[in-house]
Amino acid sequence: MRTTVERRAVGPRDVLIEIRYAGICHSDIHTVRGDWGKVPYPLTVGHEIVGQVTEVGAEVTRHSIGDRVGVGCMVNSCRECDNCKAGEEQYCLKGMVGTYAGTDRDGSVTQGGYSTHIVVDEDFVLRVPEAIAYETAAPLLCAGITTYSPLAHWKAGPGRNVAVVGMGGLGHMAVKIAAAMGAEVTVLSQTLGKKDDGLAFGAAHYYATSDPATFEKLANTFDLIINTVSAPIDMGAYLRLLRLDGTLVAVGAPPEPLPVQVFALFGARRSFAGSSIGGIAETQEMLDFCAEHGISAQVEVISADEVNEAYERVLKSDVRYRFVIDIDTLR
Amino acid sequence: MRTTVERRAVGPRDVLIEIRYAGICHSDIHTVRGDWGKVPYPLTVGHEIVGQVTEVGAEVTRHSIGDRVGVGCMVNSCRECDNCKAGEEQYCLKGMVGTYAGTDRDGSVTQGGYSTHIVVDEDFVLRVPEAIAYETAAPLLCAGITTYSPLAHWKAGPGRNVAVVGMGGLGHMAVKIAAAMGAEVTVLSQTLGKKDDGLAFGAAHYYATSDPATFEKLANTFDLIINTVSAPIDMGAYLRLLRLDGTLVAVGAPPEPLPVQVFALFGARRSFAGSSIGGIAETQEMLDFCAEHGISAQVEVISADEVNEAYERVLKSDVRYRFVIDIDTLR
Repeated sequence: MRTTVERRAVGPRDVLIEIRYAGICHSDIHTVRGDWGKVPYPLTVGHEIVGQVTEVGAEVTRHSIGDRVGVGCMVNSCRECDNCKAGEEQYCLKGMVGTYAGTDRDGSVTQGGYSTHIVVDEDFVLRVPEAIAYETAAPLLCAGITTYSPLAHWKAGPGRNVAVVGMGGLGHMAVKIAAAMGAEVTVLSQTLGKKDDGLAFGAAHYYATSDPATFEKLANTFDLIINTVSAPIDMGAYLRLLRLDGTLVAVGAPPEPLPVQVFALFGARRSFAGSSIGGIAETQEMLDFCAEHGISAQVEVISADEVNEAYERVLKSDVRYRFVIDIDTLR
Repeated sequence: MRTTVERRAVGPRDVLIEIRYAGICHSDIHTVRGDWGKVPYPLTVGHEIVGQVTEVGAEVTRHSIGDRVGVGCMVNSCRECDNCKAGEEQYCLKGMVGTYAGTDRDGSVTQGGYSTHIVVDEDFVLRVPEAIAYETAAPLLCAGITTYSPLAHWKAGPGRNVAVVGMGGLGHMAVKIAAAMGAEVTVLSQTLGKKDDGLAFGAAHYYATSDPATFEKLANTFDLIINTVSAPIDMGAYLRLLRLDGTLVAVGAPPEPLPVQVFALFGARRSFAGSSIGGIAETQEMLDFCAEHGISAQVEVISADEVNEAYERVLKSDVRYRFVIDIDTLR
């Protein structure tokens, strides 16, 4: 459904962006369908946004007209709490302002990127390197940073064994980034259906989790497991794949509590952690890292009137590996 | 019930210890009552053991007759796996040999410290510093190292906010050790009944977890929470007490899986971890640390025929803070 969304007038520190592409994230679907609670309709979703700066406020110093830029999952935060000051705005103690369905400081409900334009405070606008095409850059703003941040924080790199659970939008980025960081990467996917892709993205090993032998063979193997699957998994089985001091990081989550076998943590001083997107500075670092390593998302570009069909395919995991809407089809 | 336990002959690398005191750990009770599975009766429990060396094998180099020594929760490991080589014998990939109810490499079932003597490989025998009395040293071998190890691993120290959940045998040691490490220590106990003791042990703050206001007031406060309570707790509520990058470490565990609210982990990149005793070198480090800082357990010394009554009191948390059996009453 097309509608008209009002954007605020460009303030002194705002940037007006003409959006070129917007990625489709599973969160968009959860949100519009009300899976995560009441939705402030009318709502436009989309938080993997890239485009071009067409206007800047009088005090803007970080961006200029014509710049290639991106906006991810947040458009504001309090900037005063310890976490904001530490550059971890995503963990703002007063709550970061989501790119859509959030409440900005002026009380307005934020509207996302399935839209021709967006007005964003310059501090929450990222530079998209020339080396990355617009359409393959869009998913980096959510799927990219959501996996880059824990991989960087828990030190994926040479000599480290990293497993990625799930080969969807997040998973395929995790594989590419972890491999570029120098880690030895293993994909744990339900089937071997995407094995060729996984190896092409940089994985050294690929196992089917539907095969119980996988869990025997890989016990005590990984320093880090990035779980991109938001459906409940058998935590005890996955935790036992971690070696001494290993960490399993959830970047997707089921809404209901997950039963955790504490004895599996005990057995090798293992940790179960959660990670949420990344800070603004780290998101820029991720974009620059991807440009430097020739990494971007593998996408299927669709027109605006194919969104509903795309949602159905996302829910069936039938996408390689991210849908991106060509926003020119909205104009 | 008294019985005669055969100890193996002192081998070339063995030490014969005349036991003076043995602490009562909650694990002893779980084990003898079959809470953790089938028990290889007849069984003698006890893994907080101190005494004097009375005989050494021909090749023993680390201990001499007359030395004050201790034995904790393990008496052997494979010594060849990565974890053993890293000095983390408690996480031996082939399974460490427990001090009781374990199966040693010769196939015999190990027997614990509620006993007049024990024969142990010298590598698993600790030196008990002169500065610590035998009876107050005994609980260090389990309660002490179980709390010291995670406090050291997760860097309790100046500038770090550490909470200890539970003020029992483990909890009281955690408070003393964390305070001696220089951390700002908060006790989270069901009631304020042991508040004076907690503050005397070095805690700066003491809160009742029965008061819901505690969880509001302390949200986003701690770098580290050591949970010494093995009954299930409301994980979401406790995880939200952690600040950015904080870790909640379980050192006791319910046998059933614990429901974990993954969104509480997400909210501040929090971790939920488990830790099991400590390595042999680290146990020695802990004993030396305690001696240097004038720390030991607060104990109630009992005679051998008071053990059953003591068990009942442990189950009611009615002990300040560890029962220690005077093994001379067994002779």
